[in-house]
Amino acid sequence: MKALGRHILVEYFGCDRKVLNNLDSIKRFMDEAAIRSGATIVDNVFHLFNPHGVSGVVVIAESHLAIHTWPEYGYAAVDLFTCGETVDPWKAFEFLKEKLGSNHSTTMEMKRGQIEGVKVLRHKPEIVVDELSELEVPVEV
Amino acid sequence: MKALGRHILVEYFGCDRKVLNNLDSIKRFMDEAAIRSGATIVDNVFHLFNPHGVSGVVVIAESHLAIHTWPEYGYAAVDLFTCGETVDPWKAFEFLKEKLGSNHSTTMEMKRGQIEGVKVLRHKPEIVVDELSELEVPVEV
Repeated sequence: MKALGRHILVEYFGCDRKVLNNLDSIKRFMDEAAIRSGATIVDNVFHLFNPHGVSGVVVIAESHLAIHTWPEYGYAAVDLFTCGETVDPWKAFEFLKEKLGSNHSTTMEMKRGQIEGVKVLRHKPEIVVDELSELEVPVEV
Repeated sequence: MKALGRHILVEYFGCDRKVLNNLDSIKRFMDEAAIRSGATIVDNVFHLFNPHGVSGVVVIAESHLAIHTWPEYGYAAVDLFTCGETVDPWKAFEFLKEKLGSNHSTTMEMKRGQIEGVKVLRHKPEIVVDELSELEVPVEV
């Protein structure tokens, strides 16, 4: 692995405006998107603005998924930032595109955390069993 | 305004590892960074991982600021996503660079929400006073 994480910036256009303004739906879809991508949800925060628009973030063990909606424009800005080989942010992308009803989207994928001088780059520490105590301990870098 | 928001992706290298692993410090710095950029804090969520690393997001009225730290690599991935003319994400960038003790950083600024066919693009609805009720009401799009 040459970078710690992958970050997809998504612009969803032509979305269903009622969905974009529904806090419960957006929260549910973002949580489900995290699960479908293989991520582990740690916490989340969602907010409905006055007079409209939803913002929310799902913090995952592997970074975060974020959304900001503009129902008046049928537009949602989404970030899918994940780490590790077992998480696939593109699954979150496909799921959200369908649920938001977006008829056109653009994406840009970025590598995050390209660390030099490390032989094996681990997005989370390797845990080994300490032979004496039989407890799991992190490998010291 | 030609886009709803500005999103700066920051890679902070060579940071102070103790700072990167201190939940209270990271939270305090991220909140202060939001304030210094001129943003309005709505909510936040921060998490300390085992054995190390902090993740957190400050949801602001103008989108969000996010951070994920890897103390073992002296690296932090930060996102500064703001909207509107009165918020300057670069102030958050400068402040965090100093507080995290980063000796080298890279940035990439992206426009988010380039909506076609709208004469005046507003990141939040315009509020006008309704003459009859004397109450503030949003302008219908």
